[in-house]
Amino acid sequence: MKKYFLLLYCCLTVYILHAEDGYRLWLRYDKVDNSKLLQQYRNAISYIQFAHASPTLAAAKEEMIDGLQGLLDKKILVQNSTENGTVLVVTAADSIIYSLISRDDLDKIAIDGFVIETKKINQKNIIVIAGNTDIGALYGCFHFLRLLQTQQNIQQLSVVSAPTVQLRMLDHWDNLTRTVERGYTGMSIWNWQKLPDYIDKRYTDYARANASIGINAVALNNVNANATILTKDYLIKVAALANVFRPYGIKIFLSARFSAPIEIGGLKTADPLDAQVQQWWKKKADEIYQYIPDFGGFLVKANSEGQPGPQNYNRTHADGANMLADALALHNGIVIWRAFVYSNETNEDRFKQAYNEFKPLDGKFRNNVLVQVKNGPIDFQPREPFHPLFGGMPQTQVMMEFQLTQEYLGFATHLVYLAPLFKECLDADTYTKGKGSYISKVVDGSLENHPVSGMAAVANIGNDINWTGHPFAQANWYAFGRLAWNHNLTSAQIADEWIRKTFTNTQPFVNKVKEMMLVSRETIVDYMTPLGLHHIMGYSHHYGPAPWYNSAARADWNPTYFHKADSAGIGFDRTATGSNALSQYAPEMRKQFDDINTCNENYLLWFHHVPWNFKMKSGRSLWNELCYKYYAGVDSVRWMQSTWDNMKGIIDDERFKEVKMLLTIQEKEAVWWRNACILYFQTFSKMPVPKGLEQPDNSLEYYESLQFPYAPGIGGNQ
Amino acid sequence: MKKYFLLLYCCLTVYILHAEDGYRLWLRYDKVDNSKLLQQYRNAISYIQFAHASPTLAAAKEEMIDGLQGLLDKKILVQNSTENGTVLVVTAADSIIYSLISRDDLDKIAIDGFVIETKKINQKNIIVIAGNTDIGALYGCFHFLRLLQTQQNIQQLSVVSAPTVQLRMLDHWDNLTRTVERGYTGMSIWNWQKLPDYIDKRYTDYARANASIGINAVALNNVNANATILTKDYLIKVAALANVFRPYGIKIFLSARFSAPIEIGGLKTADPLDAQVQQWWKKKADEIYQYIPDFGGFLVKANSEGQPGPQNYNRTHADGANMLADALALHNGIVIWRAFVYSNETNEDRFKQAYNEFKPLDGKFRNNVLVQVKNGPIDFQPREPFHPLFGGMPQTQVMMEFQLTQEYLGFATHLVYLAPLFKECLDADTYTKGKGSYISKVVDGSLENHPVSGMAAVANIGNDINWTGHPFAQANWYAFGRLAWNHNLTSAQIADEWIRKTFTNTQPFVNKVKEMMLVSRETIVDYMTPLGLHHIMGYSHHYGPAPWYNSAARADWNPTYFHKADSAGIGFDRTATGSNALSQYAPEMRKQFDDINTCNENYLLWFHHVPWNFKMKSGRSLWNELCYKYYAGVDSVRWMQSTWDNMKGIIDDERFKEVKMLLTIQEKEAVWWRNACILYFQTFSKMPVPKGLEQPDNSLEYYESLQFPYAPGIGGNQ
Repeated sequence: MKKYFLLLYCCLTVYILHAEDGYRLWLRYDKVDNSKLLQQYRNAISYIQFAHASPTLAAAKEEMIDGLQGLLDKKILVQNSTENGTVLVVTAADSIIYSLISRDDLDKIAIDGFVIETKKINQKNIIVIAGNTDIGALYGCFHFLRLLQTQQNIQQLSVVSAPTVQLRMLDHWDNLTRTVERGYTGMSIWNWQKLPDYIDKRYTDYARANASIGINAVALNNVNANATILTKDYLIKVAALANVFRPYGIKIFLSARFSAPIEIGGLKTADPLDAQVQQWWKKKADEIYQYIPDFGGFLVKANSEGQPGPQNYNRTHADGANMLADALALHNGIVIWRAFVYSNETNEDRFKQAYNEFKPLDGKFRNNVLVQVKNGPIDFQPREPFHPLFGGMPQTQVMMEFQLTQEYLGFATHLVYLAPLFKECLDADTYTKGKGSYISKVVDGSLENHPVSGMAAVANIGNDINWTGHPFAQANWYAFGRLAWNHNLTSAQIADEWIRKTFTNTQPFVNKVKEMMLVSRETIVDYMTPLGLHHIMGYSHHYGPAPWYNSAARADWNPTYFHKADSAGIGFDRTATGSNALSQYAPEMRKQFDDINTCNENYLLWFHHVPWNFKMKSGRSLWNELCYKYYAGVDSVRWMQSTWDNMKGIIDDERFKEVKMLLTIQEKEAVWWRNACILYFQTFSKMPVPKGLEQPDNSLEYYESLQFPYAPGIGGNQ
Repeated sequence: MKKYFLLLYCCLTVYILHAEDGYRLWLRYDKVDNSKLLQQYRNAISYIQFAHASPTLAAAKEEMIDGLQGLLDKKILVQNSTENGTVLVVTAADSIIYSLISRDDLDKIAIDGFVIETKKINQKNIIVIAGNTDIGALYGCFHFLRLLQTQQNIQQLSVVSAPTVQLRMLDHWDNLTRTVERGYTGMSIWNWQKLPDYIDKRYTDYARANASIGINAVALNNVNANATILTKDYLIKVAALANVFRPYGIKIFLSARFSAPIEIGGLKTADPLDAQVQQWWKKKADEIYQYIPDFGGFLVKANSEGQPGPQNYNRTHADGANMLADALALHNGIVIWRAFVYSNETNEDRFKQAYNEFKPLDGKFRNNVLVQVKNGPIDFQPREPFHPLFGGMPQTQVMMEFQLTQEYLGFATHLVYLAPLFKECLDADTYTKGKGSYISKVVDGSLENHPVSGMAAVANIGNDINWTGHPFAQANWYAFGRLAWNHNLTSAQIADEWIRKTFTNTQPFVNKVKEMMLVSRETIVDYMTPLGLHHIMGYSHHYGPAPWYNSAARADWNPTYFHKADSAGIGFDRTATGSNALSQYAPEMRKQFDDINTCNENYLLWFHHVPWNFKMKSGRSLWNELCYKYYAGVDSVRWMQSTWDNMKGIIDDERFKEVKMLLTIQEKEAVWWRNACILYFQTFSKMPVPKGLEQPDNSLEYYESLQFPYAPGIGGNQ
């Protein structure tokens, strides 16, 4: 017995020493530490059985063996007969499914949902995991493992789950040189040099992680695209990745450079109405499908921030998108066309430009086109009102674009849980078809009965060992997948799951850390851009505060363009007396923001130029409220620090220390944001920082002098 | 008992699943799988005792606990008393050392060597690990662990070991943007963005790995240097790294940009004889030592490939180096001045230029200057004759510069064990003080009794999980450290150690894989640059063959400059009838190469322009011999492939597959090199590929058309 414990000790020692580097993400299958539940699980699970074989079910089998053996700390046998304690995995390809699962449930789960049910057949207690397809069954297996990882009771399982959105997608802004635009976690995980012959284990683990949360599509390369990815040499490399991803139900998309016919095709034009251009793309599509039979399609950033597009030839975005859509249609490919456009040459409020550009094109896109719209009208700020194109293009399949990489939210050093940001947008009511016209229903296609729907997020993944740099940034990848699958989940539910899978089921830890996560987004809004401030970060690299910056080549890249602070007040008047951007929303929505006195204060400076003395709901002046918000943000980070310090010893030291160090950086940078912004805006308000608050310990000149020539995430666009 | 095995199974399963990603390098402490030896070890080792405490001994203690508990699979207690089975670690700070270790041995081990001895004191059987310093003791601990890792008998230990070279150094060519010049394994491990507050676990593991092989100095940044590293913001970050490295005995050096006084100092000049410039560097040195009290010094690339230097002001390299040396002297800092210089403006053979430049400066450098010379006269080719500056500057402390990153040896995809390359150079006889004037003796200072000696290697480390990309590239890091410690070790000894520590002690595996490693360097010479060919790789990125390339901005960057193939023959005449580079060597050395008929054929085309029909020692014509060599190289890779395939099952599947995939790439690229070079040189020789050899399956035009715009390892110099 002593020997037994000694062995246990040593194995676990070695194990702990090498395993808590974050590489495993939420796919951790360590032994269940609740002995009662462990007994329940062990009693219920001894065998797995697959009703048929396929590459996807082989992946499911491997995951189930690893997962169950790890969690249950016992040998799991693969059987061809059904015994007591069998987990039986079936699909519509197995006739037995109809004796196990109701037609009704099978209808509900559609293409890639799943059912998990506790059953008794031939006196044997078994658990059935069923999908209409192999992928559905795979998703069911991952969900079953999640139940054990989160220590759920599995005695009477009856789970029916199907995704609300069809295309659940990650967009990588990865360049061919392996730099990542807005990437803060090392290099791109795509090692083009070693592909196609070297298949990094990471590719499989990436596919596993995505499949475990239902992500079924990825765009591999930067939307600021390089046409070279469409050449044969690279398509062969892409195909090798597609082969890895296929069993996990993940389709590959490529960002297509609109001028590719010129750059790699030798044509003189990329005019979408030119027959040769159309022919070139058709041939290119045919070639791609030769290498990648299940190729997803193209993601396109056109006529935006210097990218070429149809407007170079006086054609519309619809002309461009449709031309590509036609090239892909034969192969059931899809074009995802980004609506992130704004021009330097117009004086129009940048907020309004995408809507102005795309609204008139509503109804003009092919069936296999999705128009991808960022959640807000500017650019992934800590808080934005929703983009007016949601609900604004009823005849168009509008896809959501979120950003996981924290370009404007502290890079990979700030703990910010983004689910509340995503939910805030998804749960917003556009009112475009009356009350209840939620963005979630626009995006999942149900509001207008669109056949194709999608939700994308710009990935926060790099080749850091733990994938996302900050251990908590993994939660954002996770939350995005879960919400794309089911936007009715709450931020708290998802955080709860993630914490249990990633760290521990220990209740005080789960509770406290969940609290930290749930408060973290409001915290960063407070210390960066409270009360509706936006786009006041450092130029180009976007690192740290620079509300004073006013030297960008384009006016609409300058913080001063957005905050408009002056002696009278601060904020962007987007009511009828100003840019009237509010007119792009439905009247019910508009009404919530139109009146400075009733406007939700979270969005106040998005829509109003507000006097410094304006009386806020708290009774404070705007200036004082602004100060209190900035200080509250810093205080909240400090609360997160002390909360985390109390977690010492509950989890492994490695990740504990990592997060502790990162919170130290976050606190420093929160103070930096607070001080720099307060000092700068004070030059307009001429009012003091309220008494009782710690006074900034550096001068405005100091903050203005800071330079970050090698801030990460810029990269070339190659 | 059944439960016991089940538990064992599960623990090991989990363990193996997550641990064989190569991150642990050779510091793997898995349970000894030889039961007899395990018993011996367990009997001999139960406790560790440290005679005093210090940060370095704390690091030693942690390593010993982890290592011994892992290897012996038993609990190791730290004690303050000496029991049977104690490993006692002592230094000259502990008076007891003199009763345990002879004065003679303590003299032998000097500053950082160690003694390991089996002893009996007070009837207790113990093992003593002794150093004069804490660092010496730490090295002794690592060596002791190595004995167990490699399954040595430890019953009567009597080891006395001291390094032959003082400065055992890694040079990182890492930029502040985290790109790595000539890096093929991801990004720089230095995360400047997160420093100084975030201390990546990698920094400690890097220090451990280096200390385990005796490396005691690192230059953090690219020799194509950015002055920003010398600013306060970055020095604070560097200091944080220095704090991590200090307990492990590792000093930090920085590559200093010679024009820093202009770029960050606001001066108008960087003239080394200018008083203001001298003052600026003195102040800068004082500042650096405030942050990093044990700062090593500067590494400088000056007036080389576009870098600024003293010649910009008509001063000599000695003027530049001495000015910096004076600034550092007060703090005992060192200047490492690179001799890798060659000019575009002269018609002189590039081979000769560094010698011509530096030879006249012999004796003119300060005592705290080392002149760092690459092993060969051109640039880290698969095979070069040794650099004539070795032995050519007897009054100068000449330091060796090897390259671990495989810039010219297949990047991180080819299996090439470099110890034979290093040894070939170190064991070469310069004859400059008569027979036996080996380069090893030049470098370790013994030939001329120099007080300071050093050996550096350009690191092959990046943020790939396994550090070096190719699992076998770890062996080169390891071998360099071991040879810097003791250049008398053989390539086979080091390979043997490394295989046992990194993979397994299973004898057939050790034997076969060692055989692969030992043949691998000759193999790459054969398929890339046989018979003395050199510098015929792709332009700029150096990926793949391009002997035809002739369009570089500088003549001496063109392959055609180096191979000089024409209808008469091939090779660079460096005898008296040609550039007479041979005149830079001692007469005995020269004699070995001067005569085309007796010249060592490994170097033939380095020194002679040889007719295609020239009869080689094999009896074949030069052309046929060239062909046979190229084909033999490919055959050898294929032999490596089949040898490796036979290793399946002996080691973990993860690394087995990784190496297998990499060998597939290596084979393809070996064929590419062979075919491209043969086809190209055939346009001059007009002779057929000998019968019986597989004919190239692509045309020369095909090979010439290949483009690699995104080949890795170029990066900016920021």
